[in-house]
Amino acid sequence: MDEKLLKKMCIEARKIFLSSLEAVEPYASVKRSVRIAGNKLILGTEEQDTTELDLTKYDRVFLVGGGKATAPMARAVEDLFGKKIHKGIINVKYGYTEKLSITRIIEAGHPLPDSNGVEGTKSIIALLKECGKKDLIFSLISGGGSALLPLPAGDITLSEKLKMTSSLMACGATIDEINAVRKHISSVKGGQMAKAAYPATTINLILSDVVGNKMDVIASGPFVPDSSTFNDAWEILKKYNLKNIPATILAHLKSGMEGQVSETPKADEPFFSSVHSLIVASNTLALKAASKKAQELGYKTMILSSMIEGDTTHVAHVHSAIVREIIQTGNPIPSPACILSGGETTVTIKGKGLGGRNQEFALVAAMDISGAENIVILSGGTDGTDGPTDAAGAIADTTTLSRAMDMGLNPGHFLANNDSYHFFQKLGDLLITGPTNTNVMDLRIMLVNTQVSQFRQD
Amino acid sequence: MDEKLLKKMCIEARKIFLSSLEAVEPYASVKRSVRIAGNKLILGTEEQDTTELDLTKYDRVFLVGGGKATAPMARAVEDLFGKKIHKGIINVKYGYTEKLSITRIIEAGHPLPDSNGVEGTKSIIALLKECGKKDLIFSLISGGGSALLPLPAGDITLSEKLKMTSSLMACGATIDEINAVRKHISSVKGGQMAKAAYPATTINLILSDVVGNKMDVIASGPFVPDSSTFNDAWEILKKYNLKNIPATILAHLKSGMEGQVSETPKADEPFFSSVHSLIVASNTLALKAASKKAQELGYKTMILSSMIEGDTTHVAHVHSAIVREIIQTGNPIPSPACILSGGETTVTIKGKGLGGRNQEFALVAAMDISGAENIVILSGGTDGTDGPTDAAGAIADTTTLSRAMDMGLNPGHFLANNDSYHFFQKLGDLLITGPTNTNVMDLRIMLVNTQVSQFRQD
Repeated sequence: MDEKLLKKMCIEARKIFLSSLEAVEPYASVKRSVRIAGNKLILGTEEQDTTELDLTKYDRVFLVGGGKATAPMARAVEDLFGKKIHKGIINVKYGYTEKLSITRIIEAGHPLPDSNGVEGTKSIIALLKECGKKDLIFSLISGGGSALLPLPAGDITLSEKLKMTSSLMACGATIDEINAVRKHISSVKGGQMAKAAYPATTINLILSDVVGNKMDVIASGPFVPDSSTFNDAWEILKKYNLKNIPATILAHLKSGMEGQVSETPKADEPFFSSVHSLIVASNTLALKAASKKAQELGYKTMILSSMIEGDTTHVAHVHSAIVREIIQTGNPIPSPACILSGGETTVTIKGKGLGGRNQEFALVAAMDISGAENIVILSGGTDGTDGPTDAAGAIADTTTLSRAMDMGLNPGHFLANNDSYHFFQKLGDLLITGPTNTNVMDLRIMLVNTQVSQFRQD
Repeated sequence: MDEKLLKKMCIEARKIFLSSLEAVEPYASVKRSVRIAGNKLILGTEEQDTTELDLTKYDRVFLVGGGKATAPMARAVEDLFGKKIHKGIINVKYGYTEKLSITRIIEAGHPLPDSNGVEGTKSIIALLKECGKKDLIFSLISGGGSALLPLPAGDITLSEKLKMTSSLMACGATIDEINAVRKHISSVKGGQMAKAAYPATTINLILSDVVGNKMDVIASGPFVPDSSTFNDAWEILKKYNLKNIPATILAHLKSGMEGQVSETPKADEPFFSSVHSLIVASNTLALKAASKKAQELGYKTMILSSMIEGDTTHVAHVHSAIVREIIQTGNPIPSPACILSGGETTVTIKGKGLGGRNQEFALVAAMDISGAENIVILSGGTDGTDGPTDAAGAIADTTTLSRAMDMGLNPGHFLANNDSYHFFQKLGDLLITGPTNTNVMDLRIMLVNTQVSQFRQD
């Protein structure tokens, strides 16, 4: 172990994390993905397949959206189109606002939707219905969009809808099952905004906060075809034998099955050809930016997966096994190595301490790599807030445990009490970025260097 | 998905697994690592650092050992030295015997040691003490060696020793803690055979069945220095506040702390310079052989880690996330890809079904990859027996779930009942090799091919 080299690696890990945050910043992400060249609107980056639209076909530009990151996304569209924007409305979380020229920002409840959200969504639907064939709509979607764009269908109230969702969560329904039900008791989710916007052309810009970037899942896909049906929703309620389902919900689902209420739009609906959906930022993009920065710093890099889910402790053990393998055999890539992964793990809270999944990941990893050669493991949430803490995550290295022991801290006790925040706070190894206004889930950055430090001579 | 290509990939996964088994077959492993050239004995393969011994220095060759794989290892040494072998004794598990010319095979209890094991170990110690400076001893060690080479210290009985170990396991002691205690209530573990063999020269050939190939852990390291002390062992018993510790054990540990009984030999003991230890087969070696075979079959390969431990379900999810990433972004390596990993996971048994950690891994993976492009995931134990079954493991592919559904099998029910054996048996996707006489833990072989099948024209 080489403490000077380790310190340098810790700083490098932080730099790599910050580089990846820059790449998924909402304003920059929209600017990178949408360009105007003469009369052409070009969608997509050079690395993607691009779509070109002829701007002379459109008279007016509109802007709608919902999600925590949509204010800076809207600013980017305003910067591009200026006064050509006729009108805009976006729903954001309380406090997630900023100064925009034209677009009206409605602050609303998240994670629990509220009446502000409902009123904003009604205004958005009214705006979409106002649009005609010669209008171009920008729809801005990011994490939190599902709660921030609530509009219960039929006579269902917001509180009935919320009760339904929490019953489904409590009975162990899968996320796909919950989404199928939610889309069928909503007036906007599951492609219904696309239907409202027709015959206008919609450019649907998405900042993805879900594993696998499924567009029908992000914010419940208001502009994306839905594959589930009223019958599916009904079968799911039957499957879990749910009691006390509000009568309004049962009535609405029955009407849907009998064809009295329209089904959510399916992929073969012709109006989806007027919607151009594009992921402007994602965990994959953050990983690529991290990989680029790590290469600049001299590391060989490997992106393991952007889709890592599961229990934090076990996922951390697998990651530790990979970095320890680098030291033992040079697999999967030789030192100096940077292994990257993304996704979102879960923590089963048993203790009363303070922490988050990223800080807990770092604590487990610290125990696994203790005393090995030079290893640094950073785990951080791209939104800057890990669990209910002011830290984005934490940084572990091969001296973390011995430094903790020297201070009289027992890592096992902190772990058992889910108190990773105070463990890393005492060591000065929290990762603090402040709120980042973006969210593409979590990143892990693992650096291994078995070489002798270039500073040893100093 | 391409069923013809998938079938081909399933056959390839089996071929890759069999190639890795060949590489760690005990007889072949010894033959590869020990060669005679003229008067020189060369230890190590071309890929390793080799050690040369001058055979003219030695008058006699002896052979001792313990472990499930030691009969074929002994046959390899007999093939090399023929009648130059003066005497040999090895302890193997009941039924793990074969025909040898000179070496006496003692069949004994495993995983529970018995009096046959004790008698055999006494004979081995007597043989070692008989050896002098001009003798060359081959010590053959493999998985199971700890139970197969039992010799309680002092007045401790075998049943007292077993009781001690099971109390430690029950109270949640770590494996390092259990080993520290075991080595200090034994007359052979923790380097004590090396002491008995001195002043002879010992060649200690090890077939590793532990994560990280720690030589002091494999079979409790009878020829390897021990870093733990009588004081450590005493503190561990105090830490877990164990009741009903046999008086003989307490007395022996006290004698040890008071210096009336010798401490286990430490790394600075001069007689360890007469011991040449060499890992002749390991999980890493199996992974390398698998990688070579996969490359011959046209795959790009990546060895993730040989040290994967933890809960089977979560570990399987991480593996699935990596192969799904290949399909989505070509990371960490592009298709056609073969990702390899090794180690040994654990299963918390809740159901009453039949299965093992490898079959359960395959079942979880089957659910994760269902319906994706062409993916095959094989998980198998290199000893050929996964849990209490006659299968080494199982093979999952992207059609496993739909084929199961067609047969009316509910994979979730089989998983909840820990009944992976019957699930894969019904599908015809068990991996059956029969007992392999070796054990370097488990292997996972994951094949991904997003290409169109070359057979599509047929």
